[in-house]
Amino acid sequence: MTANYSAATPCRLDQVPAWDIETDVVVVGFGIAGACVAIEAASAGASVTVLEVAGTHGGSAALSGGEFYLGGGTPVQRAAGFEDSTEALFKYLLQSGGPGVDEAKVRLYADGAVAHYEWLAEQGIPFKGTYLPGKWLEPVTDDTLIWSGSERAWPFSEVSDPAPRAHAAQMEGMGAGRLVMDKLAERALACGAQAHFNARTLCLVADATDTVHGVVARIDGKISFVRARKGVVLCAGGFICNKDMVQRFAPGALAAAEMPTSGGNDDGSGIRMGMSVGGAVSHMNEFFATKPSFPPDNMVFGIFVNERGQRFINEDAYHGRATHYILRQPNGRAWLLMDNGIFARPDFNPDIQIAAVGETWAEVEAELGIPSGELVHTVESYNRYAAAGEDPVLHKHADWMRPLVEPPFAALSFTGEDYPATGFTLGGLLTAASGEVLNGDGVAVPGLYAAGRTSCGLPRWGEAYCSGISLGDGSFFGRLAGRQVAAQ
Amino acid sequence: MTANYSAATPCRLDQVPAWDIETDVVVVGFGIAGACVAIEAASAGASVTVLEVAGTHGGSAALSGGEFYLGGGTPVQRAAGFEDSTEALFKYLLQSGGPGVDEAKVRLYADGAVAHYEWLAEQGIPFKGTYLPGKWLEPVTDDTLIWSGSERAWPFSEVSDPAPRAHAAQMEGMGAGRLVMDKLAERALACGAQAHFNARTLCLVADATDTVHGVVARIDGKISFVRARKGVVLCAGGFICNKDMVQRFAPGALAAAEMPTSGGNDDGSGIRMGMSVGGAVSHMNEFFATKPSFPPDNMVFGIFVNERGQRFINEDAYHGRATHYILRQPNGRAWLLMDNGIFARPDFNPDIQIAAVGETWAEVEAELGIPSGELVHTVESYNRYAAAGEDPVLHKHADWMRPLVEPPFAALSFTGEDYPATGFTLGGLLTAASGEVLNGDGVAVPGLYAAGRTSCGLPRWGEAYCSGISLGDGSFFGRLAGRQVAAQ
Repeated sequence: MTANYSAATPCRLDQVPAWDIETDVVVVGFGIAGACVAIEAASAGASVTVLEVAGTHGGSAALSGGEFYLGGGTPVQRAAGFEDSTEALFKYLLQSGGPGVDEAKVRLYADGAVAHYEWLAEQGIPFKGTYLPGKWLEPVTDDTLIWSGSERAWPFSEVSDPAPRAHAAQMEGMGAGRLVMDKLAERALACGAQAHFNARTLCLVADATDTVHGVVARIDGKISFVRARKGVVLCAGGFICNKDMVQRFAPGALAAAEMPTSGGNDDGSGIRMGMSVGGAVSHMNEFFATKPSFPPDNMVFGIFVNERGQRFINEDAYHGRATHYILRQPNGRAWLLMDNGIFARPDFNPDIQIAAVGETWAEVEAELGIPSGELVHTVESYNRYAAAGEDPVLHKHADWMRPLVEPPFAALSFTGEDYPATGFTLGGLLTAASGEVLNGDGVAVPGLYAAGRTSCGLPRWGEAYCSGISLGDGSFFGRLAGRQVAAQ
Repeated sequence: MTANYSAATPCRLDQVPAWDIETDVVVVGFGIAGACVAIEAASAGASVTVLEVAGTHGGSAALSGGEFYLGGGTPVQRAAGFEDSTEALFKYLLQSGGPGVDEAKVRLYADGAVAHYEWLAEQGIPFKGTYLPGKWLEPVTDDTLIWSGSERAWPFSEVSDPAPRAHAAQMEGMGAGRLVMDKLAERALACGAQAHFNARTLCLVADATDTVHGVVARIDGKISFVRARKGVVLCAGGFICNKDMVQRFAPGALAAAEMPTSGGNDDGSGIRMGMSVGGAVSHMNEFFATKPSFPPDNMVFGIFVNERGQRFINEDAYHGRATHYILRQPNGRAWLLMDNGIFARPDFNPDIQIAAVGETWAEVEAELGIPSGELVHTVESYNRYAAAGEDPVLHKHADWMRPLVEPPFAALSFTGEDYPATGFTLGGLLTAASGEVLNGDGVAVPGLYAAGRTSCGLPRWGEAYCSGISLGDGSFFGRLAGRQVAAQ
């Protein structure tokens, strides 16, 4: 076979010389979504073949903090004394899904979150069950529960009762995603799924009506035709590693594409395969990005200003939210202002550039080149608000406010290239909650499913992302897709 | 035939019982793009069948101001004494295409703009050739040339030399789009194109490899199979009239969807047909929107503030740009501040709500519920800048600045529902400059072309839209698509 397969063009069924592998379910990608598809489909009695392009399981999830955004009163939340309800979780996720939220998915997820936590534990993911206070990117201890979104911050705190909801696997230090993926992959194999590594899926196999029957893959260097009697589930990640696709479909994410949050294989091939048989895509422009401003917590007492000297975000918001606002400031320029009393540098970027230092805020203003009087006014107003314990302008919570009056004063640069963002794409194939890939009319493409970042799931509004929602969404809807395809 | 055809699913070639119509080129939609496709394809000797869902030609272009964004030194620009160059036009369009600009299209368009003006005149579109000074939505006289973008405003004025570039058809008063479309449609028919009205294209006809061979259409109530020997060109407009699609693909445009700038048939069917055979879409989230703040010119002397009392846009920018910035302010709230010396109401909305009036700016601030001192500071700073003739904060041009010091003072509401926006979508099928529809790998789908708002063309960044670019893009790339398909 010398045919030149490409993801955007299906191989037609009548061009398949013979099936090299026959299975009920083909899962493309062995990351968080693929592993959960495999567990559920295999548990339901289907034969499952997982094709993973890398040499091992895990995908980008293995590089994550191993956190799942869950709530509604999990055992961990209750043990730590936090009241949470299904409705509070529902409202928060509905708000953070943005104007194009998929309410049906949010409803299912909120209703199923506690049971999903229990299921994850049953798969062998260890959860210590303890709470770690403070503001973190992910637990630096082996604790379970942390705050990981903008729940306590305006405007989210106006809409739903806040609770910490990131549930991390037990591991001392950061990076528990590898542990999560080891457990889930082990479980998928124990359930009977067959995994092929170094197996690149090249394109779908579809008949003349675009019904999907399998895939063409290069497995250990050999072209193989893999039949999927029940369906193909695309769990191949997003497209942050594909510069052409980022340029075309998510130009805003170019700001994060130099330093992708990815295992390296988020090349958009899953999305392109779905499009090749008429699958629609949505929210392709959306992305997660961060240039974290905390921890340490001290940073949150600082205030962000742009080159006009204006504040633009309540600094107690999630770091990814602050980053989205930073990226859209004029010329991408922003600084975090701190006084001597709170001075610190972000753990994530201890070499952060100090753009200005002064004995007065007027000196800092002049050094930053901000029009005279603008930054001084902003700090004076803020200090007055902080003294009164209320921020009527940006609605930062009083817990994170204190007047910035102790010299010297400093401005830390969060400007574009001074502090590059890392991130990944959120857009993908339009899917029903069942995982079925939908065409432009919202009708299912027969035989095709998607989950994780190959689909457009719960996280679809970069400015309201929260840590743990990608693993949460990928695992939860991966499970639903696994059950749906097995039932065909 | 009782089959239930839908745009998102092609009819397969082997399901066509017989061709009711056979032609070289099928053009779906008789708006600006479709008319220009038809003229060029028919002039090149191809037989052309145009299918228009409405009862007459024109599409949404017929409701427009009949302006074409052209430059590089047209006869009209030169006669009015404006220096413009191909490079200045190129740079302006490159900047206004945003981070995902299609540079190849911009290059072709800038290089061909003067010749395109001449071609439009040759088709019978009357251009008086005279210049109308001031800031307008479209000419209210029968003049030709007006300023219609942000050319003289920051940051565009920093990048390219400004010139007025909207070239409008000669007609006393607004709405010359109908005249433009009458002339182009007449010309298309004179060139030999056959037009069917009340002809809804239901879906594409494609073979098993997704090569497009024609369409299924309902013509005067009868299902007809229309063969396109050379190709199908989708010129069916955008999707602002399809609420489901707006919700899914361009949720930000919901703000403009209640009052669409559309002839009523921008239902996204062209885009969905393209996706059905593997065509990729891009910039689906982008949209044009406006709640015009001028004319009269007096409005431009006012300053916009948000609920924080902050300015957020140089008010001399194009009205659609200001609107995009308004839409993203906290809670969608914004007011235009005016003093007695400049007081006016926008022509487009003479009943605009006056949200506050006061003898001092502090009174206006209090009445708007803006935190104490914030609006007062903003106006004081602005007045100081205005007196000095320089705006270091927002970079408004000195021509539009004067201190706002003559009471009474007023705030006009540009907040969400107080002043709804009108607009349309900018995203669509990914196309080469030749009009070929591309799949996710950037490879052409055989037999399929698109132009106008069914494709993603020059206007693809709502915040930098300029009037005349849709007719300019639709006509210019419609012509290229017409020539390309005729040459097959």
